[in-house]
Amino acid sequence: MTTTPAAQTLTDPDTPFAVVDVHKSLRNIERLQARANQLGVTLRPHMKTAKSLDVAALMHDGGMCPVTVSTLAEAEAFADGGYTDITYAVGIDPHKLPRVIALLRRGVTLRVLLDSTEQAVFVAEAARRFGLPIPAQIEIDCDGHRGGLKPDDPALTEIGRILHDAACLDGVLTHAGESYFAYSAEEQRLAAQHERDTAVAAAERLRAAHLPVNCVSVGSTPTAHAAEDLTGVTELRAGNYVFFDLVMAGLDVCQVHDLALSVVVTVIGHRPEYGWIITDGGWMAMSRDRGTANQSQDQGYGLVTDLAGHLIPNLVMTAASQEHGTLATRDGADLPDLPVGTRLRILPNHACATAAQHHGYHVVDSGKGTESAPVIHARWPRITGW
Amino acid sequence: MTTTPAAQTLTDPDTPFAVVDVHKSLRNIERLQARANQLGVTLRPHMKTAKSLDVAALMHDGGMCPVTVSTLAEAEAFADGGYTDITYAVGIDPHKLPRVIALLRRGVTLRVLLDSTEQAVFVAEAARRFGLPIPAQIEIDCDGHRGGLKPDDPALTEIGRILHDAACLDGVLTHAGESYFAYSAEEQRLAAQHERDTAVAAAERLRAAHLPVNCVSVGSTPTAHAAEDLTGVTELRAGNYVFFDLVMAGLDVCQVHDLALSVVVTVIGHRPEYGWIITDGGWMAMSRDRGTANQSQDQGYGLVTDLAGHLIPNLVMTAASQEHGTLATRDGADLPDLPVGTRLRILPNHACATAAQHHGYHVVDSGKGTESAPVIHARWPRITGW
Repeated sequence: MTTTPAAQTLTDPDTPFAVVDVHKSLRNIERLQARANQLGVTLRPHMKTAKSLDVAALMHDGGMCPVTVSTLAEAEAFADGGYTDITYAVGIDPHKLPRVIALLRRGVTLRVLLDSTEQAVFVAEAARRFGLPIPAQIEIDCDGHRGGLKPDDPALTEIGRILHDAACLDGVLTHAGESYFAYSAEEQRLAAQHERDTAVAAAERLRAAHLPVNCVSVGSTPTAHAAEDLTGVTELRAGNYVFFDLVMAGLDVCQVHDLALSVVVTVIGHRPEYGWIITDGGWMAMSRDRGTANQSQDQGYGLVTDLAGHLIPNLVMTAASQEHGTLATRDGADLPDLPVGTRLRILPNHACATAAQHHGYHVVDSGKGTESAPVIHARWPRITGW
Repeated sequence: MTTTPAAQTLTDPDTPFAVVDVHKSLRNIERLQARANQLGVTLRPHMKTAKSLDVAALMHDGGMCPVTVSTLAEAEAFADGGYTDITYAVGIDPHKLPRVIALLRRGVTLRVLLDSTEQAVFVAEAARRFGLPIPAQIEIDCDGHRGGLKPDDPALTEIGRILHDAACLDGVLTHAGESYFAYSAEEQRLAAQHERDTAVAAAERLRAAHLPVNCVSVGSTPTAHAAEDLTGVTELRAGNYVFFDLVMAGLDVCQVHDLALSVVVTVIGHRPEYGWIITDGGWMAMSRDRGTANQSQDQGYGLVTDLAGHLIPNLVMTAASQEHGTLATRDGADLPDLPVGTRLRILPNHACATAAQHHGYHVVDSGKGTESAPVIHARWPRITGW
């Protein structure tokens, strides 16, 4: 016999803990889905941010949308959850091929990524050895962010040929990672256009060499929201948008009230002589990410709201040690009266990094009213490890 | 029937994963224990770095040494492991008292920390309500790092009185957190002396008010290694020393060859046009900590060794995204030849933060020889969450 526990609110669990506002998350999801529909491309959301089957379920009606993952642990968890169309968007390490093969044998279309002839050769060899095509995408570099081939690299068609001869060539993929530093709408629009142009140019070069390209995949949260024309692109990837964060708000990709992830902390002390309030949420709860440090408005380790989610004006989390956070006001504003034991929510710089510090989410729904102590509707686990 | 698996080496588990070299860790532990013995104080190691019963067991011969913890999850795990003398060194939140009471009822001497009359009142009230003294230490601020009272704060004796009247006053505790920015041996020595002086002054003020002080606790990894005289102090705390890291090496508290924690990663690509090697170890594996950024030698996200632990000269992890690391050389040195699939170890900036990204440790022992692929002797879990 199971008993139904009384509804908990955000005043109940011991702090710190991570909260997802499902109302805001759904609004963010619907916004980008509408854009993808309008642009005529498939949306393949990146699971690296939420790492949650429950968050992913907000994105579809049980139809198991195509997904992107950053680890094989995510791929395996999504396969266990019934997802059959998965792109593992980190350059493949030969050592990890047995787990890739195991997923393919389970009937999952798991695409791998690569950008060198070395990788193409071992993927092709493994495909032949196991008698199983391994769908592979060639990573294209559109902005010098990290991996990938320039679309005019002579290795592109060589890699395409090696993969095609082993029935492994699936397409090309690029990620405009530098768009996180595109500080105006015009720069973001240009980054999106360049991301598209680069991916399509690479696909065209392969096709000109009689190498069939199925998938042309682009995306990052800023460019996904800025793209105006994705002709030639087949799918759009983005991950961060499911929660958004202060970095994205600083880029004006979203507003602060769109942030769906926060961390509940408790006031444990005051240092009026320094203008500090001390909480029990340090970098262990928030991560060390300082993504807004280079933006026009540095948000420290995060902005502060009350438990209902209303911003407390001018209050910023300015410092973090492992289990201590320091809150202070901007511009010498007076400190609000927040006694020991007061619970607050911190909006993070970088949702992917903050979420990664937690094993799961406490789920609230601001669409059902803004109680001073929001009810916890569910607890959702996160996928961890590699 | 259980079967014994063949010995694995660092070439076997999928990357990235965390490695502890038990030989180096033991050497670090013995070094600080010898110092504590010489200084005539009890060492109460902080478990917040390793968060591991197995690492703690390196510190004693089954005698269950006194420990410091940063979360009640650690306190509970150490209590489950038989430890009965635990200090929870984060300012107490009233909401967490039920778990404190539960530990005390199990026979664990769990000390809590506080720095306000509000906290003293609710601790004293809880002690009376549950008919159980709650040993409490008053946090003293020696360097403006975060929490604590200045030793001359009028509230000190008021708090002492409230606690003493409820049989809860245990002592004073201070932490020279600013010693992480003490860049010379002399500055570290002075920080240690000031940490001692401040804690002892606070204890003397309480004693002068006829408030008995049992414990006078000081410590941080830099000051613990720099202290020359701890007269009046009863115990020394430090945590990071069990692994050490590049921040501590930058302060000359240890040498790079003392670092006991590393992360094994795999080369997944090359960008010779930028001078980059790309690995599968990003900030998810290393954390976002950039603690050496303000030191005279910025070590990026970490230094690089081969799998046997030998430093690769001039190679630095210069950038990180979630699951990608970028390695580059310092001073335009040529990139070493490290093909796709090569495994490397990254030495972290901040051991506490990097260890926190992993669920456990793969344990090697460089004292048993330096094989090119060190044998994994054990796998040790970490305590996670709050």
